[in-house]
Amino acid sequence: MLSQPAESPSARGVIDALRRLVGESHVLVDPAERAGHEIDWTGRFQGRALAVVRPADAGEVRAVLRLCNEAGIGVVPQGGNTGLVGGGVPRDGEVVLSLLRLRDIGPIDPVAAEVTAGAGVTLGDVQRHAAAAGWAFGVDLASRSAATVGGMIATNAGGLNVLRHGPMAAQVLGVELALADGGHIERIAAPHKDTAGYDLAALVTGSEGTLAVVTRARLRLVPRMTARAVAVIGLPDTAAAVSLVGRLQARLPSLVAAELFFEPGVELVVRHAAGRRPFEAIAGAYLLVECADLASPLDDLAAALSDEPSIVDIAVATGASDRLGLWHLREAHPEAIAREGVPHKLDIAVPTGRLADFVAMVGPAVAAVVPAARVHVYGHVADGNLHVNVLGPGPLDDAVDDAVLRLAIELGGTISAEHGIGVAKVAWLSLVRGADDTAAMAAIKRALDPRGILNPGVLFPVG
Amino acid sequence: MLSQPAESPSARGVIDALRRLVGESHVLVDPAERAGHEIDWTGRFQGRALAVVRPADAGEVRAVLRLCNEAGIGVVPQGGNTGLVGGGVPRDGEVVLSLLRLRDIGPIDPVAAEVTAGAGVTLGDVQRHAAAAGWAFGVDLASRSAATVGGMIATNAGGLNVLRHGPMAAQVLGVELALADGGHIERIAAPHKDTAGYDLAALVTGSEGTLAVVTRARLRLVPRMTARAVAVIGLPDTAAAVSLVGRLQARLPSLVAAELFFEPGVELVVRHAAGRRPFEAIAGAYLLVECADLASPLDDLAAALSDEPSIVDIAVATGASDRLGLWHLREAHPEAIAREGVPHKLDIAVPTGRLADFVAMVGPAVAAVVPAARVHVYGHVADGNLHVNVLGPGPLDDAVDDAVLRLAIELGGTISAEHGIGVAKVAWLSLVRGADDTAAMAAIKRALDPRGILNPGVLFPVG
Repeated sequence: MLSQPAESPSARGVIDALRRLVGESHVLVDPAERAGHEIDWTGRFQGRALAVVRPADAGEVRAVLRLCNEAGIGVVPQGGNTGLVGGGVPRDGEVVLSLLRLRDIGPIDPVAAEVTAGAGVTLGDVQRHAAAAGWAFGVDLASRSAATVGGMIATNAGGLNVLRHGPMAAQVLGVELALADGGHIERIAAPHKDTAGYDLAALVTGSEGTLAVVTRARLRLVPRMTARAVAVIGLPDTAAAVSLVGRLQARLPSLVAAELFFEPGVELVVRHAAGRRPFEAIAGAYLLVECADLASPLDDLAAALSDEPSIVDIAVATGASDRLGLWHLREAHPEAIAREGVPHKLDIAVPTGRLADFVAMVGPAVAAVVPAARVHVYGHVADGNLHVNVLGPGPLDDAVDDAVLRLAIELGGTISAEHGIGVAKVAWLSLVRGADDTAAMAAIKRALDPRGILNPGVLFPVG
Repeated sequence: MLSQPAESPSARGVIDALRRLVGESHVLVDPAERAGHEIDWTGRFQGRALAVVRPADAGEVRAVLRLCNEAGIGVVPQGGNTGLVGGGVPRDGEVVLSLLRLRDIGPIDPVAAEVTAGAGVTLGDVQRHAAAAGWAFGVDLASRSAATVGGMIATNAGGLNVLRHGPMAAQVLGVELALADGGHIERIAAPHKDTAGYDLAALVTGSEGTLAVVTRARLRLVPRMTARAVAVIGLPDTAAAVSLVGRLQARLPSLVAAELFFEPGVELVVRHAAGRRPFEAIAGAYLLVECADLASPLDDLAAALSDEPSIVDIAVATGASDRLGLWHLREAHPEAIAREGVPHKLDIAVPTGRLADFVAMVGPAVAAVVPAARVHVYGHVADGNLHVNVLGPGPLDDAVDDAVLRLAIELGGTISAEHGIGVAKVAWLSLVRGADDTAAMAAIKRALDPRGILNPGVLFPVG
């Protein structure tokens, strides 16, 4: 056990020392003040923090880490607390290290197409800051108002435009890191291409706060596309949707999104979230595609779809409100599903060639453990990434997760495409990563965090 | 000293054991057979190998590593041997592990836009294989006929199209790794987005064979652009070129290259390499830009350049041979410079805002140590990456490298943008990476290669 019980004299000493480092008002020990930092937004993950510490800058972050490392106290880095796998809330008596005060954002560099932002800057702020200078940021997520740069790097966030711009890993050009022992790695000022040593920015991206704490990052920007076209296409089945996306990717450089969903989800969005059907026909699979360019991509999109015999029906939008209406059919899925109960949410991915198999097999796989469960599936075709939402007749246990995750692995896929492992999927990590792979990851963890204070319980089992 | 002298009984035992693992004809011990593997193509780096071993597949690679690890013999992984920093040739008695027999290349997956290739597949083969299926690969280099997938990953190769598609790191979706102790990490079959644990593919990319040996990789493909336009633009100075590239990047999503060069280089290309001047005027800086799209990008390029008052003169090409003629002015620089002597070649990068300062300061910095030296500079504007070629009146020593690398660091830059550290720049690594950073890298090295057999002397000083 790394953590000290909050009542012990040594815990009180640590709290006093933390107050000296960051100021009394930024060490939250009152249960009411801690509460919002101790539970994730789904309500599934919750724990008790020794304290919530809010350092003002990178220097204070390092000082807090040095102190906790010497005291042997676990530290849970936290950004916007929008995670889905329990990686950003305390387990038992850790210090929650909130990065929300690291909000500095630098000027846009138009030649290098980049910007430097503190760990606590939200995605929405990055997007607005870039747009004001005529640029865009390559990652977009529904939680844009709360998700932070630090959290998105820690989880290698994905989202809606990965097929065009890649996940967060593709946007991170440099980082400033605070190490477990309070050490300092500064790789912010360097240019885009830098092959002097290991790419530690890439290593920490997706490491879920277990190797180091990101205090600042230099982020790639992309040209802002002002002309857009969106289509929702009805197709006979998943295989037809996957195959169509392959052809569109080769023909349409302007393609930025290709989202898949199904009739049961459309029904829920119509019933609970004011969704409007795109067309009369009931399709076996719905594919939403978006193109973005400087000039209207509508003609290119129409041409690419014109000789596709498998299309059941199609709705196309170029005006902003019509586009939002089509996107709403897809984006309102989580909200509409939540109206039916508390789902288990799993973000698997499989090779795109097995997507249709996964869609066909996931219902029976879940039914084998919970016959009355309902399964809603939607996701990002080109990434092979599907969000599986399982609603039970009552509370569900891990058997549902086990069935879904094992199916993904059986089809050559992975147990996490964008949420991460956190504490939620530690038990399944060894199924998707071989013994030598897991041992290599553990060796890297020990190399950078020998006392194991950084996010204990995440990725690796405690003790 | 890890290495065994070739004559010792234990060395003979290792060679016999290697022969049993990969077959007698694939363990080269004859000096004449070894020779091509023991010297780099510039002739600057040369050493003696205990043997050159050519495994047939990943299993044999792992077996060779296991044997060498147990025997404590250094291993130098080698691909096409096109490196420029001595990282791919032996230092003293290591086993050279040639990956050239790992040449399998899989079918193109058009939905995921990817292909799997063995470490020994050349860049040219990847490009042809992709093109035959209507796709392209995002990285291009002059050494395409010899550079291999494994070597390009090990060095995080850059090249001509980084501003559009990123360096090799942005193309690597998955890897199969052989570990120092013969262990096996398999991250090939997984989908694009995979956040289950640390991104070991990203960690080994650019690690110069010091952490693991890449045996296979899954590579991202990009849409093939068939319409191209190239312009060479004369500008008053470097600052004007940098500023113009910033505006073009924001306005031209089709921009794929922005290359900078200068009058002394143009003169050499005209004199030694059959170059033709793009226009009459002598410009302070020459900027080559290329746009690529499905439809002709010429109108967009012309429009973007039409209201640029700083342009001295301009030559535009759309036909294939005219385009090649303009590109030749830039691509023939190395050949033309080599006709004048053996240059020291340094691939620094600085933040783009300091590019003009670097260009102004590098000549005086070199002259301070070798007054009669000539300095030729060219490179990739958007990446902040300049190739500095120094020609001496006679042989040059490390004082020239020191002056150039220190200037890059002083301007906030790095000592390697795409060649790597190898053995050539080990002495300068601690100038660009802080003490905590260097210690973290060394800890990662020890974690994955505890006996230090993988490419000893590269990145870190020996012993």
